Amino acid sequence: MTSSTRPQAEPRSAYKVFRDIGTRWSDNDVYGHINNVVYYSWFDTAVNGLLIERGALDLHSTKPGSMIGLVVETQCNYFAPLTFPEPVVAGIRVAHIGSSSVRYEVALFPGDEDQPCAAKGHFVHVYVDRATRRPAPLLPQLLAVLETLT
Amino acid sequence: MTSSTRPQAEPRSAYKVFRDIGTRWSDNDVYGHINNVVYYSWFDTAVNGLLIERGALDLHSTKPGSMIGLVVETQCNYFAPLTFPEPVVAGIRVAHIGSSSVRYEVALFPGDEDQPCAAKGHFVHVYVDRATRRPAPLLPQLLAVLETLT
Amino acid sequence: MTSSTRPQAEPRSAYKVFRDIGTRWSDNDVYGHINNVVYYSWFDTAVNGLLIERGALDLHSTKPGSMIGLVVETQCNYFAPLTFPEPVVAGIRVAHIGSSSVRYEVALFPGDEDQPCAAKGHFVHVYVDRATRRPAPLLPQLLAVLETLT
Amino acid sequence: MTSSTRPQAEPRSAYKVFRDIGTRWSDNDVYGHINNVVYYSWFDTAVNGLLIERGALDLHSTKPGSMIGLVVETQCNYFAPLTFPEPVVAGIRVAHIGSSSVRYEVALFPGDEDQPCAAKGHFVHVYVDRATRRPAPLLPQLLAVLETLT
Repeated sequence: MTSSTRPQAEPRSAYKVFRDIGTRWSDNDVYGHINNVVYYSWFDTAVNGLLIERGALDLHSTKPGSMIGLVVETQCNYFAPLTFPEPVVAGIRVAHIGSSSVRYEVALFPGDEDQPCAAKGHFVHVYVDRATRRPAPLLPQLLAVLETLT
Repeated sequence: MTSSTRPQAEPRSAYKVFRDIGTRWSDNDVYGHINNVVYYSWFDTAVNGLLIERGALDLHSTKPGSMIGLVVETQCNYFAPLTFPEPVVAGIRVAHIGSSSVRYEVALFPGDEDQPCAAKGHFVHVYVDRATRRPAPLLPQLLAVLETLT
Repeated sequence: MTSSTRPQAEPRSAYKVFRDIGTRWSDNDVYGHINNVVYYSWFDTAVNGLLIERGALDLHSTKPGSMIGLVVETQCNYFAPLTFPEPVVAGIRVAHIGSSSVRYEVALFPGDEDQPCAAKGHFVHVYVDRATRRPAPLLPQLLAVLETLT
Repeated sequence: MTSSTRPQAEPRSAYKVFRDIGTRWSDNDVYGHINNVVYYSWFDTAVNGLLIERGALDLHSTKPGSMIGLVVETQCNYFAPLTFPEPVVAGIRVAHIGSSSVRYEVALFPGDEDQPCAAKGHFVHVYVDRATRRPAPLLPQLLAVLETLT
């Protein structure tokens, strides 16, 4: 990979919405820093928490036509270690909105606001009907939230 | 178990120090509420986070004489469900200080301050020399923190 | 606690059914051994996996009258460390069957069959109607499995 | 993304070494299938477990010159759901060996040997001196294992 294509850490200003993440004892692995896997649980937490709070996802809905997002791709680059118990902030933006899919990009920042992200990545949600698990067009209340993230 | 000995939910006033816990998407299990196991990761997080912040535990210390707490017993009773993405508050108190052991009691509260705890439990730390893993007397900086929790 | 009441490690012969547990990288915490919390995820896994395999629990059933077990109490004592990547075996027995509750006791054994358990504990399931979440009498197919565990 | 570049599920024959993964109750999320994050914990588990068993990684070594692998990039594509308690098999291959880095590719297969992988991805390890955390040339015992994976 040449340096021109190598992923680079970004500042907070490159993201649209921010969510506090509380780190946990179990996030640190045997090497003394937060394990690479944990970052993805923060991706899920930051984005789904936002969607739920803004009324675009109802975790317990069983109404006909209710939709959920299934993850079909995830990716992350790691630039610097993070460590419990330091606080972490997740920055979110939306990079692509398809007919039934969305690409969310998430970066994890240390508490110091001047520092670039310690890691960044993305995941792709395909939105499906909760009952049939078939892809379906994005609902208006989801689109309304997504517009604030682009 | 008779009702007189059955564990009862307690109010926040029964605890000494409080720590915010950020819930996560992965905390909810297939039944739609936070899994019983997760509560114990919050016990570890609340108590060790407090000890680290107050200088009574250094996660990365390799100095001779540095000590760590090993868990020899844990227990929890569950009174009401908790669910991501609602916020949770951990209340902490110390019920017993031995020569090299401490019993920490932790309760998990929903965001509404008037509600009793959704779960409560305890764990027992035996403090050992980090290198030899042999029990050793509690260090002064730990005792100073514990005094604020009794 | 006197030595007569202190929990003691037990041999495999004290348990009825055994389930292999695959340890994971993330099970080890910063101290280099499996974290105390992880043992409870093995309790859930061993017992629920057994119930599902034997037809006493259907994870995805939405049929009227289908039941699930909610955890109201958990407890564990730790006698010796376990460490990824060593294999672990869970031993299961049932200590009490109530009208709508069951006390499962689980011990975790290292790979060497002659060694006593590294930890043991219990959890109490209250069985409830999946839709109403109200306690209900244990179903015949569950009772049939429980009989083999007492 | 055109169909020619879209990641495709592969058969077991595309991988070199296989490791059994025991699924857990907590792997299933609120949607009833294994959460996307969990797959990465299996990547770590499969590869590091193999390296430890074959003598190429010592989790607890503090000897001068001992090395550990730090993760700088991870990625995964998901083709079909996996669900606890079904067994999962991880297939491993090595796609690139650099001077101090390795790209491991891992696929997760359902129990049925004729099925293609349910997910596949990769992670990049940069190997560093455990004490200094500076990149260092791959050690002979690691290279010997890697050769069997290419």
